[in-house]
Amino acid sequence: MDSAVVALDIGGTAIKAALLDRELTELKVLRQPTARALGGHTTAAAVAEQVVALTGELTGGGRPAGVGVVVPGIVDGGVAHYSSNLGWREVPFAAILAERLGVPVAFDHDVRAGGLAEATVGAARGVANSAFLPVGTGIAVAIMIDGKPYASGGYAGEIGHADVGHGLPCPCGAVGCLEAVASASAIGRRYAERTGRADEGARVVVDAARAGDPDARAIFDEAVDALARGLRLLTTVLAPEVVVLGGGLFGAGEFLVEPVRRALGEYLTFQRAPELRMAELGDRAGCLGAGLLAWQVTDAAGIGA
Amino acid sequence: MDSAVVALDIGGTAIKAALLDRELTELKVLRQPTARALGGHTTAAAVAEQVVALTGELTGGGRPAGVGVVVPGIVDGGVAHYSSNLGWREVPFAAILAERLGVPVAFDHDVRAGGLAEATVGAARGVANSAFLPVGTGIAVAIMIDGKPYASGGYAGEIGHADVGHGLPCPCGAVGCLEAVASASAIGRRYAERTGRADEGARVVVDAARAGDPDARAIFDEAVDALARGLRLLTTVLAPEVVVLGGGLFGAGEFLVEPVRRALGEYLTFQRAPELRMAELGDRAGCLGAGLLAWQVTDAAGIGA
Repeated sequence: MDSAVVALDIGGTAIKAALLDRELTELKVLRQPTARALGGHTTAAAVAEQVVALTGELTGGGRPAGVGVVVPGIVDGGVAHYSSNLGWREVPFAAILAERLGVPVAFDHDVRAGGLAEATVGAARGVANSAFLPVGTGIAVAIMIDGKPYASGGYAGEIGHADVGHGLPCPCGAVGCLEAVASASAIGRRYAERTGRADEGARVVVDAARAGDPDARAIFDEAVDALARGLRLLTTVLAPEVVVLGGGLFGAGEFLVEPVRRALGEYLTFQRAPELRMAELGDRAGCLGAGLLAWQVTDAAGIGA
Repeated sequence: MDSAVVALDIGGTAIKAALLDRELTELKVLRQPTARALGGHTTAAAVAEQVVALTGELTGGGRPAGVGVVVPGIVDGGVAHYSSNLGWREVPFAAILAERLGVPVAFDHDVRAGGLAEATVGAARGVANSAFLPVGTGIAVAIMIDGKPYASGGYAGEIGHADVGHGLPCPCGAVGCLEAVASASAIGRRYAERTGRADEGARVVVDAARAGDPDARAIFDEAVDALARGLRLLTTVLAPEVVVLGGGLFGAGEFLVEPVRRALGEYLTFQRAPELRMAELGDRAGCLGAGLLAWQVTDAAGIGA
């Protein structure tokens, strides 16, 4: 198994796991619900147990060359400082797994890993300075500088909580956050609030907007404007050459990208407009990024040995 | 003269020039108005002539080890793509000067060079990820990543044109730009417009605000709020550990920094607040940064020889 790594993208509800060779070919793929211990909590111990079991299952009981794991939250230096989806605080998960697995372990942030994958084998390959903007339950951005993710202690990239001026409250406690009107969950919730219907998620709202429902159109248009404003500030401050648009919401394709591109073009004056590209790796980005990180840590350990 | 470089910070009105040893000690300093050719234009040819003359004057006719030059505008890869202060477009000034001077030449952006100086020998020395925010006629930010300036083709760092929500027009053509209410020039102009008095610059407004003038206080408070909002977005997206505050406006010291820090603290929820530090190098930052870049290019040429 020296020729393969195990990669795991651990979310609050599900784990995507894969056995990957050096070309990131998926030799084997598994998905399962994230482990919950007694009381329904996702504890680090229960998830570590699950990672060990999944590694064994993927390798047929052998030892992989290395393991890469990514999670949401504030993650840096092998430690999950805070992950609201997992309910973790200050979990040194890299060290925990390295002890359990006995192979080199990389542990990092899911969105940054996804950005690394898109910048290495996806939509932004060959681009020095790019950004990966997945829009799903939340919104964060992976900032890629010279092809490498920029972390700043795990605190960078929280563009979902940049003020885009709509004046509405965000669960984070601030006002005007991009995420509060443009995330998939916000779109579903806001449409439900506006119409009195049940929240059936963003896809239903996007489809209704496409079909001409004026309530859906209003919610959709506000999300478009907020995304364009978020991209304006990213462009103004960071000037990425390419922004890779991903996450569930951009499953809407050109119906969403086209008005976002047009609104961004109207907001920019002298700035260099980034090329907006659709993500190529879909929901595999985080897992493939975990695989790239696993190979990096494995190669570094090899050099050290 | 192998032990010294010549550093020049060329602005629209004046040039600061210095002869610097490897420790950036100012062996000799000169200031003079920026050359204007016939018709009052600042041509690249006239300025190149002036750089040659200043280099001769600083070195007593000898050859320095290298020369570093910085200008405002969109500068990258040795070329000034656009500099409104100098009236330049697509000027390959590094190549022009290298041919005239016969020594290694570095040519870069004034604010990024200032950021490099503050991060190397100034207020952010030893800090990996910092930002240098000089507030003067305009507002830009030098983004320092692992101690190195981030340029992205020269387009990065235009935080003066981030939308901070005040809804007022900016000369750039957009609405809500930070620079339109918080630059020193905007503060002077807005106070003059509000009171019908002559525009005497930001310092007079700051002094009047300090003395209790309600018009000055209103203009000052709007600038404070805009700066805090600009710092909120910088913190949210880039999470610098330290932000170095400089430029003429921050000559106001704690009278300005204290309310900016307080307002920023109120805007942040889960983000990591950056440490706000006063710049240490004053208006020498750009010139010292040019010196650092001159030493870099000189050393690189030495390795290549």
